[in-house]
Amino acid sequence: MKSQPTRAAERAQLAMMLEVCAYPKPGNVDRCHDFPDTRLEHFLASTILARPALEEAERGVGRIGEIIGHAVQQTNIHTGGNTHFGAFILLIPLVYGGDIEGAKRAIEKTDVSDAVAFYKAFGMTKVCMNESDELDVHDPAALRQLREREMTLLDVMQHSAPHDMVAREWVTGFSLTRRGADLLKEYGAGRNSIGRMFLTLLASEPDTFIIKKHGRTLAEQTMRKAREVLDGARSLEEFDKECIALDINPGSIADITIAAIFVALGEGWSWDY
Amino acid sequence: MKSQPTRAAERAQLAMMLEVCAYPKPGNVDRCHDFPDTRLEHFLASTILARPALEEAERGVGRIGEIIGHAVQQTNIHTGGNTHFGAFILLIPLVYGGDIEGAKRAIEKTDVSDAVAFYKAFGMTKVCMNESDELDVHDPAALRQLREREMTLLDVMQHSAPHDMVAREWVTGFSLTRRGADLLKEYGAGRNSIGRMFLTLLASEPDTFIIKKHGRTLAEQTMRKAREVLDGARSLEEFDKECIALDINPGSIADITIAAIFVALGEGWSWDY
Repeated sequence: MKSQPTRAAERAQLAMMLEVCAYPKPGNVDRCHDFPDTRLEHFLASTILARPALEEAERGVGRIGEIIGHAVQQTNIHTGGNTHFGAFILLIPLVYGGDIEGAKRAIEKTDVSDAVAFYKAFGMTKVCMNESDELDVHDPAALRQLREREMTLLDVMQHSAPHDMVAREWVTGFSLTRRGADLLKEYGAGRNSIGRMFLTLLASEPDTFIIKKHGRTLAEQTMRKAREVLDGARSLEEFDKECIALDINPGSIADITIAAIFVALGEGWSWDY
Repeated sequence: MKSQPTRAAERAQLAMMLEVCAYPKPGNVDRCHDFPDTRLEHFLASTILARPALEEAERGVGRIGEIIGHAVQQTNIHTGGNTHFGAFILLIPLVYGGDIEGAKRAIEKTDVSDAVAFYKAFGMTKVCMNESDELDVHDPAALRQLREREMTLLDVMQHSAPHDMVAREWVTGFSLTRRGADLLKEYGAGRNSIGRMFLTLLASEPDTFIIKKHGRTLAEQTMRKAREVLDGARSLEEFDKECIALDINPGSIADITIAAIFVALGEGWSWDY
């Protein structure tokens, strides 16, 4: 094992790279599986192209909402659609603050200008919103409402937390990110720990991206099946094929996986052995 | 197809990423195949970590030999051994000059200080030298000889050109790089053109990395087999398995493939469609 890089922006890029390469990750793009329109190379191009925004976050100046917007702009030039929007929501404050405690301090300082910048960034992506959401990003009135209510970006995340586990990380002090990082350290060095950690999170939390796309029943069924794979009662390959056939992709748990790898790398966990 | 990034450092990183992901690439690390000690993630980590050296080259100040040294230092922190030394020999002048013509001007300006810096960088890698080479990088007398003979880095490449096709690119004005870029444009947009271009170069030139490792006979046999694959007389999968079984990896043609992708991206070829 050699020394780890110490720059936070690089650790974030390594986390994005390691997550997408880890396999098998049931239902998601991985080394062995592409979606028809979103491929391994799209995720890796986004990983490379996000560097200036991640360096901006690393310098710890500027505003979180705006930096998330820059990351979306910089990575939006490929045709693969949204690849890392959820990951940026977690990584930008983590890189900005250096670790979970620093990220918590950073998000407490967000204000209504961060919320506005974030909604503008959201408008550039094709991420689906919850239908019932009154703060629809495609509704010009949403920005006015944000300003009238003086909502900070943390308030926006609080608003979204019940139906979005990435937003929930902001509210719970990155609790799943923390658990994922601890699992990586428990499972030991090397890339194989990543797939196992992903599966463990999938077995313990219903993925809200699956809920938005297919409803709660299917998300909970996916969770139970992941548990059966961990218990040896179901084959991982079969589970992966089933997810792909049903278009079930646990995208939010993938975002949290990236954040967890970032945190673990900062605490000395090694991907390389 | 969306717009391509215009920053040369990013194009270089995209080229490194696209080359290692392209598959099947007989005998080399690709999306579906690792070496026991050098894996896909090592190549991608090196791609991420080379950014500062590539940006230094992009600014077009500083000395080529030194910048190659910085790239080696920055990417040397993983355990996967040498991943991109040959690629940097081509990419650093290409990024420095912006294109092949600019690279030719840049390498003509190298002097003995570039040669010394390059030899020091070489000493940090585990790249095998030709046994008969009088300028052995592990021999302290080599640096004295360089200085006594006032060899520029271009002179060093001229010295190595007969037995090293990467060095030969400096001497021939990047002729194989040019051919690879033209092939990509001929084959059209998208990642599948990369594997086909790689195979076409492999079918037309004996890889000098194979020659150093296994001798000329095996390198020429590999070349003929690649031709048979292109002609439909041999299966690509079988050829790939055979290369892996015999530890035949066309590493120098992979380096030239990266340089060719960089040039093609700069001329409007798109990996993404």
